[in-house]
Amino acid sequence: MKVTVSRKAHFNAAHRLFRSDWSDEKNQTVFGKCNNPNYHGHNYELIVSVTGEIDPETGYVMDLKVLSDIIESEVEDYLDHKNLNLDVAEFKNLNPTAENISVVIWNKLRAKIKKENQLEVILYETPRNFVTYKGN
Amino acid sequence: MKVTVSRKAHFNAAHRLFRSDWSDEKNQTVFGKCNNPNYHGHNYELIVSVTGEIDPETGYVMDLKVLSDIIESEVEDYLDHKNLNLDVAEFKNLNPTAENISVVIWNKLRAKIKKENQLEVILYETPRNFVTYKGN
Amino acid sequence: MKVTVSRKAHFNAAHRLFRSDWSDEKNQTVFGKCNNPNYHGHNYELIVSVTGEIDPETGYVMDLKVLSDIIESEVEDYLDHKNLNLDVAEFKNLNPTAENISVVIWNKLRAKIKKENQLEVILYETPRNFVTYKGN
Amino acid sequence: MKVTVSRKAHFNAAHRLFRSDWSDEKNQTVFGKCNNPNYHGHNYELIVSVTGEIDPETGYVMDLKVLSDIIESEVEDYLDHKNLNLDVAEFKNLNPTAENISVVIWNKLRAKIKKENQLEVILYETPRNFVTYKGN
Amino acid sequence: MKVTVSRKAHFNAAHRLFRSDWSDEKNQTVFGKCNNPNYHGHNYELIVSVTGEIDPETGYVMDLKVLSDIIESEVEDYLDHKNLNLDVAEFKNLNPTAENISVVIWNKLRAKIKKENQLEVILYETPRNFVTYKGN
Amino acid sequence: MKVTVSRKAHFNAAHRLFRSDWSDEKNQTVFGKCNNPNYHGHNYELIVSVTGEIDPETGYVMDLKVLSDIIESEVEDYLDHKNLNLDVAEFKNLNPTAENISVVIWNKLRAKIKKENQLEVILYETPRNFVTYKGN
Repeated sequence: MKVTVSRKAHFNAAHRLFRSDWSDEKNQTVFGKCNNPNYHGHNYELIVSVTGEIDPETGYVMDLKVLSDIIESEVEDYLDHKNLNLDVAEFKNLNPTAENISVVIWNKLRAKIKKENQLEVILYETPRNFVTYKGN
Repeated sequence: MKVTVSRKAHFNAAHRLFRSDWSDEKNQTVFGKCNNPNYHGHNYELIVSVTGEIDPETGYVMDLKVLSDIIESEVEDYLDHKNLNLDVAEFKNLNPTAENISVVIWNKLRAKIKKENQLEVILYETPRNFVTYKGN
Repeated sequence: MKVTVSRKAHFNAAHRLFRSDWSDEKNQTVFGKCNNPNYHGHNYELIVSVTGEIDPETGYVMDLKVLSDIIESEVEDYLDHKNLNLDVAEFKNLNPTAENISVVIWNKLRAKIKKENQLEVILYETPRNFVTYKGN
Repeated sequence: MKVTVSRKAHFNAAHRLFRSDWSDEKNQTVFGKCNNPNYHGHNYELIVSVTGEIDPETGYVMDLKVLSDIIESEVEDYLDHKNLNLDVAEFKNLNPTAENISVVIWNKLRAKIKKENQLEVILYETPRNFVTYKGN
Repeated sequence: MKVTVSRKAHFNAAHRLFRSDWSDEKNQTVFGKCNNPNYHGHNYELIVSVTGEIDPETGYVMDLKVLSDIIESEVEDYLDHKNLNLDVAEFKNLNPTAENISVVIWNKLRAKIKKENQLEVILYETPRNFVTYKGN
Repeated sequence: MKVTVSRKAHFNAAHRLFRSDWSDEKNQTVFGKCNNPNYHGHNYELIVSVTGEIDPETGYVMDLKVLSDIIESEVEDYLDHKNLNLDVAEFKNLNPTAENISVVIWNKLRAKIKKENQLEVILYETPRNFVTYKGN
């Protein structure tokens, strides 16, 4: 019996959408006010979902306390109260769009989740805009 | 890398569930208080999701500002503050259930979204009742 | 010890903002798209709050099951799935703005709540627009 | 045209995570504070989704009033204000984790939903922890 | 300039509404299914608000991290995953209604908040039922 | 009959909590991770409430479309996608805590609301932390 267990988490961060290899004009045209050179920011809300068989011993797919601790160490400690462009290695040369952030988070979590289980992350950049990544 | 980007929107409308080719008694039996001849209404909340590859140039699957503008022109301008039965061509002979409204919205949006991307709409008729349509 | 107890409820209704003693032009100028002659509608969410002393016998200010029943009989049965302009006596000659609806609801509930307790209603017309009435 | 219709419901219950065939120490190690012998509890929020063809007669996949009544009789009447471990037959020898509760609910609802339609349940144990079960 | 700062928190607990000095019949008549002798439970959501002058040095009325720590030590550690009737001293002879729980929480927090500041607690027993206590 | 009308709005911004007249050590001790020199950010959600008499002509305390336009021009256009410390005049020498931001917003709105009406702003810095300012 395959069940999906999900855990919500959150972090706050600043970012700016732009490419250093583009002109200011092109960045402004493509990214508009998200290109403010002084940055803006978001309360990112994250839902992490793991799908797998229920362990008949415990009745758990995965202890959500363990999942919560993994999210804290891999995502919250790494991204919370950070400037994504300046403080986070993955975004030195990668535009921190919600899409790209969700892939970075998925990759960090994937390494910590049992191989036979599936992983999905949903990342809310605002309460009205969000992205979903399940691996390719 | 396929990612889904989602955008929330909303519109308010009046409607009535009934079929003009049925008797009043049958309409009342099947649709109950939703058949009030003077109409009732809802705040419809809409989530539109587009799935596709991340554009390596921008880091976007699709600019959510563009998606938001499409939703505004195709859905909000068309349905907001309307009587679905009387003011909207698609429902002249189609019962405006949440299911049928979601299909009408999906068809209007489908024409504006890149062919290689997948489209899903979730339509909340109330905070407790909602429907999902992904195309057939 | 005065405590406030609150209960959420909801109803769906159609309405139109207009005055029959005004010209169409004036109604359109003042009320815009809310003046659609074919009506539009909302999911109204209601929070009813009663403030009073805790009864030392029960530990209740008021049994919320009783409050819920009062709201159902006085408000939900009266307004749910109705056209406020056409189906509800109070709005025959009163514009059904959120402000006026909240006063009508408050007056109906006031008659059913113990005199020594205070009453407040919050009425959400949409998740983004709401009004509060506590009596004058 | 396959559409999914969804309905939210809720119930409140007490429970304790433990196995009677394990020692107190092992239960405490595995289930931590969820193992409190005096029980703790939750407001469980439930989303039931049914996927099927739109009936061209009614415009419904399934009348949500009917679905709501099934949820009430099969789930809410059965689990609301109960102690899952002591009052509910299925959990006499089954640990009432969110995963196991979702499977029990799914099985009870499956028997009441048309065979050609698909069924999914999402069960929120808290606003931050939830599980999804779609059948195996 | 007086500003109110608010912090949300939460705990899960089991309880039963009843008075040991009443007959079973009377308890059942007054408290209905909330009187289940095997207990039921809730996810309590708590909003704690402190009103006072902005400290011109810091721009804070009160550091919300400090408020969060006080709520954790005074409320969450004390009530989370507990059976209110059996595990919490204040409810040995006090019916754990939402009203009484809010007063118990307020009294515990009041001792930790600066005297010149005002304190309010809002306690959600369910998403639909909640109480507010500001001291008398 | 005094009624309060409320409107929700939102803006995204970056900020850093610190005082330029304090040492780095003192800023770090007092403001912790909110003192990141590279900034972090939030989705600020705003609720603006205006209390006054219902205009018997319109049934409005104030047209919420007008209030919405005032919030857009005074708050959203001024603060959205900005770095509060670097881009907003009021915070050149004022620490952009939620408390101080709420006072700045209140002052800007106060000038645009009729004198006889009362004004309150609630500002959510995160879904768990918020402040309320009503004027002194």
